[in-house]
Amino acid sequence: MKTGLNFLVAAKRCEIAELRQLALTSALVNVTGRLVHGLQRERGLSNLYLGSQGTMFASMRAQQIQECRQIEAELRACFDSLDTETARLGHGARLFSRIAYVLHGLDALTGLRERVDTLAWTMRQSTDAYVRLISGLLAVVFEAADSASDPEISRLLVALFNFMQGKEFAGQERAAGSALFASGRAEMIEQQRLLHFIESQERCLQVFSEFATPQVADLWVNSQASAMLAELERLRRVLCTAANGSPLNAQLSQAWFDCCTRRIDRMKSVEDRLALDLLRACEDKTAAATRELESFHALNPQPPHEVDTLSFFRDASIEIPPAPAASGYGLQLERSILDLVQEQARRLQTMGEELDTVRASLNERKLIERAKGLLMAHRQLTEEEAHKTMRQMAMNQNRRLIEVAEAVLAMADVLPQRQT
Amino acid sequence: MKTGLNFLVAAKRCEIAELRQLALTSALVNVTGRLVHGLQRERGLSNLYLGSQGTMFASMRAQQIQECRQIEAELRACFDSLDTETARLGHGARLFSRIAYVLHGLDALTGLRERVDTLAWTMRQSTDAYVRLISGLLAVVFEAADSASDPEISRLLVALFNFMQGKEFAGQERAAGSALFASGRAEMIEQQRLLHFIESQERCLQVFSEFATPQVADLWVNSQASAMLAELERLRRVLCTAANGSPLNAQLSQAWFDCCTRRIDRMKSVEDRLALDLLRACEDKTAAATRELESFHALNPQPPHEVDTLSFFRDASIEIPPAPAASGYGLQLERSILDLVQEQARRLQTMGEELDTVRASLNERKLIERAKGLLMAHRQLTEEEAHKTMRQMAMNQNRRLIEVAEAVLAMADVLPQRQT
Repeated sequence: MKTGLNFLVAAKRCEIAELRQLALTSALVNVTGRLVHGLQRERGLSNLYLGSQGTMFASMRAQQIQECRQIEAELRACFDSLDTETARLGHGARLFSRIAYVLHGLDALTGLRERVDTLAWTMRQSTDAYVRLISGLLAVVFEAADSASDPEISRLLVALFNFMQGKEFAGQERAAGSALFASGRAEMIEQQRLLHFIESQERCLQVFSEFATPQVADLWVNSQASAMLAELERLRRVLCTAANGSPLNAQLSQAWFDCCTRRIDRMKSVEDRLALDLLRACEDKTAAATRELESFHALNPQPPHEVDTLSFFRDASIEIPPAPAASGYGLQLERSILDLVQEQARRLQTMGEELDTVRASLNERKLIERAKGLLMAHRQLTEEEAHKTMRQMAMNQNRRLIEVAEAVLAMADVLPQRQT
Repeated sequence: MKTGLNFLVAAKRCEIAELRQLALTSALVNVTGRLVHGLQRERGLSNLYLGSQGTMFASMRAQQIQECRQIEAELRACFDSLDTETARLGHGARLFSRIAYVLHGLDALTGLRERVDTLAWTMRQSTDAYVRLISGLLAVVFEAADSASDPEISRLLVALFNFMQGKEFAGQERAAGSALFASGRAEMIEQQRLLHFIESQERCLQVFSEFATPQVADLWVNSQASAMLAELERLRRVLCTAANGSPLNAQLSQAWFDCCTRRIDRMKSVEDRLALDLLRACEDKTAAATRELESFHALNPQPPHEVDTLSFFRDASIEIPPAPAASGYGLQLERSILDLVQEQARRLQTMGEELDTVRASLNERKLIERAKGLLMAHRQLTEEEAHKTMRQMAMNQNRRLIEVAEAVLAMADVLPQRQT
């Protein structure tokens, strides 16, 4: 018959399995981040190539594609190494479902590159295609962040996810700005998109710095050289303040791309550091939990008659007289197993509560995305317009964006149905 | 190399594994509920036995103990049958940790019964001991409710957990009322406890009716005969309105016990119906998911060159010309796998969002319990006093109990440390 000690051990084994799973997931997140970075560069170079009518950047682009192919092979190997035969509890279904989607996207990469090669697609079409694939990759990272059962690791993953998402907005800013400069004239709708990317990226970086360790948050602040930031902000001003239809200096396209790229490459090194911290946290915690498990194995439950089982009721309103001294060691041992059981239950509960707090920030993001989706569907808005509408509502009503999102979702039932 | 279809299948397998796990957990919850019910009766009979100085109810109590022993053996068999060797992701650690605690409590039952046999413990001591064991059993049910990954099943589990918790408050009301009548005089502190049990039970039953299906909610309303309710409320009034120190008719002890018992037995039959619905929901959903999985196996991915992989980018801003008709069937098939992948991802996301909503009610309960615990620790209050304090704050400030709990927790850092 199984004892409390058996289940104490089983619970600890589950914790260790969760931590090992998190280490594997973190490795997957790491490779995913590298492919995202590569595809962001490929997207930018493809735009420069398309912008020059195929006359420039062909070899840089070809080299970048080669590099992406290698990382893609690594990521596919990573996917192949996942155990898909043993059905997995926890967040398995959602993670696998996101991976299925990404695999379809990777299969479509060859076709996308051909369309760019032959100048068959516009910059906007190419950009949208890369954005879609990258957002599928980021959804894998999101599921990983959502699945963590340890609050400290969850914090790191939330910081990492938001940093990667912020970096993607920086990448989209680079692409949109490149296209604007290359076109040679300011266009209000593109300027609005650019502002949306800048704002969204700042929001993500804000969440990142709330959840990252102070060391990594500082690393990010210090990695941005003031001269580089000044140049970026100067070019942003040139792009965003030009009157609609007025000329832009197409020569600045390359300068803009290089400046953004330097910043994004810095972001990549912060991202690498985050990924390393994550892996170390998984390893440290797994090692600690394994040591604890070993200490449990040293315990041997005493036969029930030698044990003061009534200690279960101690600390309640019940005065339990101390057990006879004769039972000595056995008693103390049983008390200590019960103590361990109670300590484990308390710790798991505290962890659960901390986790709820961390995951609330992911939930906020989900709510805002849902509200945005609702506005897009019902009022035929683009994503940028929906976001802007909600931000405007928040400013007018002096409320947080999350509160506006909740209000929008609460109104879902009374909104007119989408016209199809 | 694994394809999107492989991961589509793997995700579905994970869903099925989750559902099967939920069916096992539901069976465990069912046996747990039966033991809780038996121990509630045993607690009541033990109080009557102690109240009569061991002159009455001895044989009824012995019979009840016998019955509890049988259900305990069933529950232990249930625990034994759990796979504790294979470490489990998901909520394994928390569930196992709760079970470890319960096993220590079950080991202590023999000692508790001996203390009652020999009249060594008072009614209050005996009651507190049973309450502690039962609350350990209910914590197992709580973890089960918290672990469900399907929102419909989660709703049923939340309804069941709250109903069981409400029934436990009804059981504690029975015990406290029996003791009050048996003592022959009204005591204000005991009357306050009684009111606390009545209020807490109504709060739980309220949550139950929000989450139960209308059929089961109606079943509960209709199962309470008006005559029985009238008698219950009359006896409640007699108990609660008597002036502190005034005499109570000790003869009413048995009538009170019988009236409460009839009600609690009715609750048990509603609980059984809930448990049955739960098991059926698990079976239906498992069967549906298995059929879906079989339909996936009928799909065969086409070699990449026969496939319109670019359909991945359709619905984006990209106009993709229809693929050449030659590829015919293969094309349609690939499109349909991608459709399945997207549908699965959407469904899992919607389920996740619904789940967040359902689990919010469990989180509210956690927050209120935490706030209560904080007040108990920092202001040296009993649980009833802490609850009453928060309720009073809510009334004074015209806020919901959950908002008061959040405010209390937000103040945690500024509260003075507990004196030890």
